[in-house]
Amino acid sequence: MTLPRKLSFWIVVSFGFALQGQSAWAGQIPAAQNPAVNLMPLPAKIVFGPGKLKIDSSFRVSLSGYQEPRLLRAADRLIKRLTLLTGIPLPLTLEEDPAKSIFEIRCVGPGQKIQTVGEDESYFLEITSQKAVLRAGTPVGILRGAETFLQLVSLDADSFFMPVLQIQDAPRFPWRGLMIDVCRHWEPVDVIMRNLEAMAAVKLNVLHWHLSEDQGFRVESKVFPKLQELGSDGNYYTQAEIREVIEHARNLGVRVIPEFDMPGHSTAWFVGYPEIACAPGPYAIERHWGVFDPTMDPTRREVYKFLDKFIGEMARLFPDEYFHIGGDEVTGKQWDNNPAIAAFKTANGLKSNDDLQAYFNNKILAIIKKHGKKMVGWDEIFHPDLPKDIVIQSWRGQKSLADAARQGYMGILSAGYYLDHMLPASEHYGVDPLEEETADLSNEQKARVLGGEACMWGEFVNPETIDSRIWPRLAAIAERFWSPQATKDVNDMYRRLDVTGRLVNLFGISDGGNCKAMLRRLAGLHPLAPLRALADIVEPLHLYLRPDVREYTQLTPLNRLVDAARPESTEAREFQALLEGFLADGPSYGVNREKVIEKLVRWRNNEALLRPILDGSYLLKEIIPLSERLKIAAESGLKALDYLVNNLDVPPGWREENLALLEGPEKPEYEVDLVIIPAVRKLVEAAAAGKK
Amino acid sequence: MTLPRKLSFWIVVSFGFALQGQSAWAGQIPAAQNPAVNLMPLPAKIVFGPGKLKIDSSFRVSLSGYQEPRLLRAADRLIKRLTLLTGIPLPLTLEEDPAKSIFEIRCVGPGQKIQTVGEDESYFLEITSQKAVLRAGTPVGILRGAETFLQLVSLDADSFFMPVLQIQDAPRFPWRGLMIDVCRHWEPVDVIMRNLEAMAAVKLNVLHWHLSEDQGFRVESKVFPKLQELGSDGNYYTQAEIREVIEHARNLGVRVIPEFDMPGHSTAWFVGYPEIACAPGPYAIERHWGVFDPTMDPTRREVYKFLDKFIGEMARLFPDEYFHIGGDEVTGKQWDNNPAIAAFKTANGLKSNDDLQAYFNNKILAIIKKHGKKMVGWDEIFHPDLPKDIVIQSWRGQKSLADAARQGYMGILSAGYYLDHMLPASEHYGVDPLEEETADLSNEQKARVLGGEACMWGEFVNPETIDSRIWPRLAAIAERFWSPQATKDVNDMYRRLDVTGRLVNLFGISDGGNCKAMLRRLAGLHPLAPLRALADIVEPLHLYLRPDVREYTQLTPLNRLVDAARPESTEAREFQALLEGFLADGPSYGVNREKVIEKLVRWRNNEALLRPILDGSYLLKEIIPLSERLKIAAESGLKALDYLVNNLDVPPGWREENLALLEGPEKPEYEVDLVIIPAVRKLVEAAAAGKK
Repeated sequence: MTLPRKLSFWIVVSFGFALQGQSAWAGQIPAAQNPAVNLMPLPAKIVFGPGKLKIDSSFRVSLSGYQEPRLLRAADRLIKRLTLLTGIPLPLTLEEDPAKSIFEIRCVGPGQKIQTVGEDESYFLEITSQKAVLRAGTPVGILRGAETFLQLVSLDADSFFMPVLQIQDAPRFPWRGLMIDVCRHWEPVDVIMRNLEAMAAVKLNVLHWHLSEDQGFRVESKVFPKLQELGSDGNYYTQAEIREVIEHARNLGVRVIPEFDMPGHSTAWFVGYPEIACAPGPYAIERHWGVFDPTMDPTRREVYKFLDKFIGEMARLFPDEYFHIGGDEVTGKQWDNNPAIAAFKTANGLKSNDDLQAYFNNKILAIIKKHGKKMVGWDEIFHPDLPKDIVIQSWRGQKSLADAARQGYMGILSAGYYLDHMLPASEHYGVDPLEEETADLSNEQKARVLGGEACMWGEFVNPETIDSRIWPRLAAIAERFWSPQATKDVNDMYRRLDVTGRLVNLFGISDGGNCKAMLRRLAGLHPLAPLRALADIVEPLHLYLRPDVREYTQLTPLNRLVDAARPESTEAREFQALLEGFLADGPSYGVNREKVIEKLVRWRNNEALLRPILDGSYLLKEIIPLSERLKIAAESGLKALDYLVNNLDVPPGWREENLALLEGPEKPEYEVDLVIIPAVRKLVEAAAAGKK
Repeated sequence: MTLPRKLSFWIVVSFGFALQGQSAWAGQIPAAQNPAVNLMPLPAKIVFGPGKLKIDSSFRVSLSGYQEPRLLRAADRLIKRLTLLTGIPLPLTLEEDPAKSIFEIRCVGPGQKIQTVGEDESYFLEITSQKAVLRAGTPVGILRGAETFLQLVSLDADSFFMPVLQIQDAPRFPWRGLMIDVCRHWEPVDVIMRNLEAMAAVKLNVLHWHLSEDQGFRVESKVFPKLQELGSDGNYYTQAEIREVIEHARNLGVRVIPEFDMPGHSTAWFVGYPEIACAPGPYAIERHWGVFDPTMDPTRREVYKFLDKFIGEMARLFPDEYFHIGGDEVTGKQWDNNPAIAAFKTANGLKSNDDLQAYFNNKILAIIKKHGKKMVGWDEIFHPDLPKDIVIQSWRGQKSLADAARQGYMGILSAGYYLDHMLPASEHYGVDPLEEETADLSNEQKARVLGGEACMWGEFVNPETIDSRIWPRLAAIAERFWSPQATKDVNDMYRRLDVTGRLVNLFGISDGGNCKAMLRRLAGLHPLAPLRALADIVEPLHLYLRPDVREYTQLTPLNRLVDAARPESTEAREFQALLEGFLADGPSYGVNREKVIEKLVRWRNNEALLRPILDGSYLLKEIIPLSERLKIAAESGLKALDYLVNNLDVPPGWREENLALLEGPEKPEYEVDLVIIPAVRKLVEAAAAGKK
């Protein structure tokens, strides 16, 4: 397979407009004077010039070169978004004469009929004080450049404007995805639609749609209608809806890859069709979370007949060249308990359940190929029996990818990009598909690492909470997949992440998801501010702790503080930075002093305001100890600050006493962490360390 | 016509469940202990009992009695909304056995095939600690009761719950509408859809859709396609979209009445069809606001042939029994300038242009009747030549309605309900269709006053701002139309209006519309809080002042502070109340003192924080004087407070000097009022009035 990061170079050169080093452009201004860039992901190359292009009601778009509906829709979308970004009404009609347009879009050719992993996505964007010109080899390249254009819209004392610059851009990896699990909790079409738009805004190009699970089967099958009728509680996508999603995704330059997990994670299939399982059933939709035993029977011809018909139907519905078969977490228990399967293994020389699964995968691969597709599966499908054109999706880490690449297999990385783990953006940002064990691969082997996918598993998200779990953190991962490997400045990433988080509001993804609405629900008719002050400095427990605290099923409401809380507290990050500045300024401690005091005082006083609200809400009573902890922590912090500022020695035992006060339960009933605690602890330690 | 407020009484009685005075219900609790009611509009009658009905995951709905798709959809919507209100996942499947359901819905009969103005909308809702039962004679009554049910969902320290009560309810007026002008600015289908849902939540039952104007023709005509092709800039509803809107409205119990304004306000028709105008043209879509001369020619047969075909097409598209012909603001100039028209008037004994318009209206009325409809028009259509089954919509006031009613004509009131005038909710709330000149009508004449419509004219709203101009103020008007005439407590109205404003968030109408997003756009990448602090205490200039300040056309951006500002400042209202409490507590001035000081200090300090943001935004520079005024006003207020609290005499001239400082420009360039000024003025006057 030819990879686009090679292809794109060729196309840029062929256009004859590549920047020949920075000196190629007379207008270039010194890097030190560059305007702040809010682009996310950062482009491969950017050179600023002097001046700006004013955006006003004279703005007109022209399309020249190759034409197709995707480009017309892209222009229409761009004009509408520019109107939203500026408030200036702009006509949707295109300017026929490129010379008269303010934004000239020139597309060279049609690209692939169905967008492929090898599709050229490179583009060149030049903005002068007179006009902007976007050039690309394919419509997908134009789509990428149009998103860059929209991220450059700025405001100053004179007008809305675009900075004068040249951007030459192409992705580092060709496979940049988001997996959404719509099975553990159902996510209706509008959730998918708005997330597709936001994905395109950060140049992601794959929606990996996890469509079947123990807990639900989410697609209408006309061949096997009991799949959705009995396996979904009525929550499934019709084929017409699937087509609408695919069409919308195509217009945004996003491929849609369906996953039907097999042979495990498949209880919901068996509710309607127990005959394809290894045990007779009956089966019911699984309501709990975990890894379960129901598994397809890999030994019977009827099972493959069923899957041949089913995969054939889905292969026609989903046009992408890849088809994901899951393949993860087969317990093997149903296989071990079935004498016929044991006999089959012996008869066919299959020594282990892994061998049996590889046998199954090979049969499925043949079916998938017959229907014109290539296969993707999780780590577990990797087996030396399989041909080299499969793609391994690694949830285990770079080592799996490195092993696979050395043996000639392609792979994508998901380990490190699990959004449901509730980790800070910086942690995901620090994971690179070509670092750790993959770092030592040869260039040829590295080229087999196609990119990665963030994973939004569905156990603890529903339509109300999913946006806040995906955004804005996904944008940091998207940058990891698109931008040059050296793009690593975490502070600058966070600065731009704030801007990008607001940008995706345009698509109906609100700041912090539905945080405010959910807090309102919790607070009833009480004023919201005290609850919000607390919610702003907590984060949900990391995923692996949460199920220890409370028993969760598909039917458990997700309506507590932990669900309204954002995965990453901006307020706590800012407090941490303020405090670092304060402590670094000892012994005078002038820097940030007032701001630190203001915040600590507000937190100390919050409990008194919040308590009546907590007492009045059955969903909030459980956070009374949390609110009390905040007060205690703020008091400790203020006392520590007092010692520091007045250069006093702390009394004996004060340090130990206060550090003990700051200790909280490891697995609190309320399922969130008070994330300003580490900063307060630093303050206590600094006070205890004594005079400088 | 039999009016529903009579009908409903009969139906209530016929059910045999009418409350026989308050004593009918053994569970009744004393009024003084009644829980707070957050219903809006208030029901006709409500009696509370002891206890509550817990809402948890066992909640199930049953439908018994008459069945139809509207009821199934209503149940589906109710369950989904209850899930949103509580966060508890609830199955959509209905309980077959009413005895086992928690919410039993019983509908007696089908009601009208097409919802009419005479439709019975009454319902009876009984909630015990075991279950809720909603009964009504028609599906529309059930829809009204379901909205009441949802408004009763409450939260306490134990659970989500419903108070135990009985509500017997029916509307005061049968015609309770909102007019939306989609011509001056275009409003896409989703704007209409979400506003329909919010309208239904406050029991409004008419969407009056103003579809043609000088500035745009907004419906697809298949018979005369140049109407939309040349008259709309591409911004029109397809007939399929119109049908979707009508279907959605029907499911919500809302009638849809189209208005095609004629013979004036019709420039956009003439762009495609100049032959129906009185002057040859050519015509272009009007971009300015005002009253314009282009008018249909009432003397030529071809014009009526055209209108017959057009009205026939629209009468088939819109099923409602009424058809609105506008008829307002004909200048008569084109008629006066056309000798053929003058000759026609003479030949037909028409003495004035009013007579000519009445002639036109009679011809149109015949066409409308031929197509099975009844006619509605603005004040100007009222003419003794017309038959008694027309409806007059009064923009002039109760006098028009009274005059019409005395002569046997039906009418609805819109004067006093113009949302674009940017008046406080209390002002609209104080206007009653049966007060002022209509108060003296006989009961028979009063019955001809069918209700009213709020008007959302489109000159200064677009899809981004319209929600904040309609909501929450419309809910106060809706209460005026539904609730008993004696419902007049303004403070209680505002308390409930806050709750209702949040309720409509469920339908995608966010708090204060897109206020936050618009302020963000104005502030660029700066922090938002200082701009928000200012925006929270300004209100847009009242409509009639705004065009004096700046020349506005359809193409003028609506992206300034005035557009982001909410029509009514809650913050200013609250400050006013705080200050009243403070002043009433002289000479000790202890009440609210800290809160008043805190606010004034915050406002005084705001200018320093805000100034760099204003300097950096071309759209905000104009409000620099406004920000300075806030600082000056806050300083005056603080000084006055100091004199009062310390019981000091103000220096000579201090009062005059400070009152002068508080004076602002009458028509400021920034187009908003600083609405805390009157409260500060009171403080200055109180200080000047001296020691108590």
